[in-house]
Amino acid sequence: MNDKILSVSRRTRSTPFTSRVEAAGVKAYTIYNHMLLPTEFVNFEDDYWHLCEHVQVWDVSAERQVEIKGPDAMRLVQLMTPRDISKTEDLQGKYAPLCNEYGGIINDPIVIRHAADRWWVSIADSDVKLWAQGLATGLKLDVDVFEPDVFPLAVQGPKAEELVARLFGKSVRGIRFFRGEMLDFEGHPLYVARSGWSKQGGFEIYLDKPELGEALWDKLIKLGEDLNVRPGCPNAIERLESGLISLGNDIDDSNNPFECGLDQYIDLDNDIESLSLPALRQLAGQQKRQLTGLIFDQKKTIQQSNLRVEGQFVGELTSQAWSPRYRKQLAFAMMNRDYLDSNSSIEIEGVLGQITELPFSVEVLSA
Amino acid sequence: MNDKILSVSRRTRSTPFTSRVEAAGVKAYTIYNHMLLPTEFVNFEDDYWHLCEHVQVWDVSAERQVEIKGPDAMRLVQLMTPRDISKTEDLQGKYAPLCNEYGGIINDPIVIRHAADRWWVSIADSDVKLWAQGLATGLKLDVDVFEPDVFPLAVQGPKAEELVARLFGKSVRGIRFFRGEMLDFEGHPLYVARSGWSKQGGFEIYLDKPELGEALWDKLIKLGEDLNVRPGCPNAIERLESGLISLGNDIDDSNNPFECGLDQYIDLDNDIESLSLPALRQLAGQQKRQLTGLIFDQKKTIQQSNLRVEGQFVGELTSQAWSPRYRKQLAFAMMNRDYLDSNSSIEIEGVLGQITELPFSVEVLSA
Repeated sequence: MNDKILSVSRRTRSTPFTSRVEAAGVKAYTIYNHMLLPTEFVNFEDDYWHLCEHVQVWDVSAERQVEIKGPDAMRLVQLMTPRDISKTEDLQGKYAPLCNEYGGIINDPIVIRHAADRWWVSIADSDVKLWAQGLATGLKLDVDVFEPDVFPLAVQGPKAEELVARLFGKSVRGIRFFRGEMLDFEGHPLYVARSGWSKQGGFEIYLDKPELGEALWDKLIKLGEDLNVRPGCPNAIERLESGLISLGNDIDDSNNPFECGLDQYIDLDNDIESLSLPALRQLAGQQKRQLTGLIFDQKKTIQQSNLRVEGQFVGELTSQAWSPRYRKQLAFAMMNRDYLDSNSSIEIEGVLGQITELPFSVEVLSA
Repeated sequence: MNDKILSVSRRTRSTPFTSRVEAAGVKAYTIYNHMLLPTEFVNFEDDYWHLCEHVQVWDVSAERQVEIKGPDAMRLVQLMTPRDISKTEDLQGKYAPLCNEYGGIINDPIVIRHAADRWWVSIADSDVKLWAQGLATGLKLDVDVFEPDVFPLAVQGPKAEELVARLFGKSVRGIRFFRGEMLDFEGHPLYVARSGWSKQGGFEIYLDKPELGEALWDKLIKLGEDLNVRPGCPNAIERLESGLISLGNDIDDSNNPFECGLDQYIDLDNDIESLSLPALRQLAGQQKRQLTGLIFDQKKTIQQSNLRVEGQFVGELTSQAWSPRYRKQLAFAMMNRDYLDSNSSIEIEGVLGQITELPFSVEVLSA
């Protein structure tokens, strides 16, 4: 497909940072949760190397929050996820797949506890608000479910901690992974957490006062001048290398968490009230498909997503990117277990791909 | 904002017609229900005139169906909408706003009855599937809620009936507005309805066998050669002139149907079980805002969406387009009733706009 223009409208919402993203010369966007999400600045490879070596500021406003507030808030969050959230502390986030009563994945957000009766569900690309509202209405729960005006700005890369410490003070260095603090910016407290959609380290600043957006962006860019800070965005190469799965690309509600390698986030044995646990207890270990990694030695974009061997469907390629670091074409594929049980490679469009677990191990990538 | 490239991925789903849309030289897309929706072929004005004079084939696969199936299907559909659907006949569609228990608009779809226990909700851009699933789970309804593999192809324009009759036979001429029939294409029955997102007349063909997509497209293009058929898409100019509102652009769940001029679709007095009716009965006639039309004599794109008069917020501009037919700049705005009650015009960015009802009347446009 040749490059196509994105038609922008009020429906494809802009963010408090869009003016800065535009001024920085963003090249491409996707639409994510009905909102602009930058995908490319210089080019994927250049963006990639910079992210891995320096620090970037990302407008990830499209990572919308669904706020669940009220006496039944914690109960509703627990109903939505098979991960035990009972021991979550205030200002702590947890990666918590949301699953329906059949075990299908509705979304794979971070759930953030602000208080027992106030949670944010920091979502991937599906309208979790509507599912939560439907459940709340149907179950007559005492909660409000809404999308607050919160716009996450991520600071990612090996120098991210230094930059964020310059802005908020050295206390940020003590924040553990998926923990956060309320930190002051221009007299306004912002939730700042150690998190982000890369494996390069960093923080997310949850801006809940849109009129401070440009000032926050500008301050980070200014403070990071000598760190070689740059506007960036989630990077297709880095996320493949790091094994980060993408809802809608790699998984959807036809998949259960076991197929996606999310077993560790499913608390099968805990006594919690979760919609999906009865189904998931049946499904555990029974999956007929598995999200796996594929590694090709040559640079080649696979054209077909349906993978066939001798005419037989064996799986579906879901994402791919060329890794300039390892000089390998990397892909994710939802493969039939039957095939995986008896094969460690697959020939696709004339090239041989090695089948491997996700996340990729550095040893395998470097081989 | 300068033109930006749309990053296409598996998440921004393509359709059974994408190969043909691409071959026809589509210029721009938006993302709608997580799917590619073409927005421009030659340019907005050229596409507009052609639509109004000839016939176009539109890939509106992004108008996804939510299928609700099972003994409680009709009950669930009625719960979701305040419009009385009890007298809907098989293969009949009805424009039916979906509203939550506060009266907020979740979506404004066509609901199509295939049978009492099988409905399609043909949606605008929000994940109605998740809301319906949440309600079904919470209320323990005996239904399946899913997105079937159905890809609507619209045939729109004054010559649409002729073209569709050439394909399916003359019985299509007898189909009334929002009614449909199951008609044969290559041995496979397709739901064909008189509907579509323009006021130029036409049909929608609901393709539920994706592998027939290219053949269906090609056949329509071939049969319409002498009708000057062309690939097209929902047109920003035509929809403004016709007063068609767009979820996410003009309205969202912070609006109730009365604010949007949808009173006629709300059956306040009927004895039906609908989640939103108790709230809507309270809200009727009390709206503080109203979606209205604005008409400017000169061609000028308004830059600010927040409309202020003497520093006071009076409304929000939601959509706009230059009408080459009437030589007027047309806009929709969600205006404060206070302002509307005592003003018939508004000055914005130095130009005077006339305030008028929606849909625009031809008399007012022609004045």
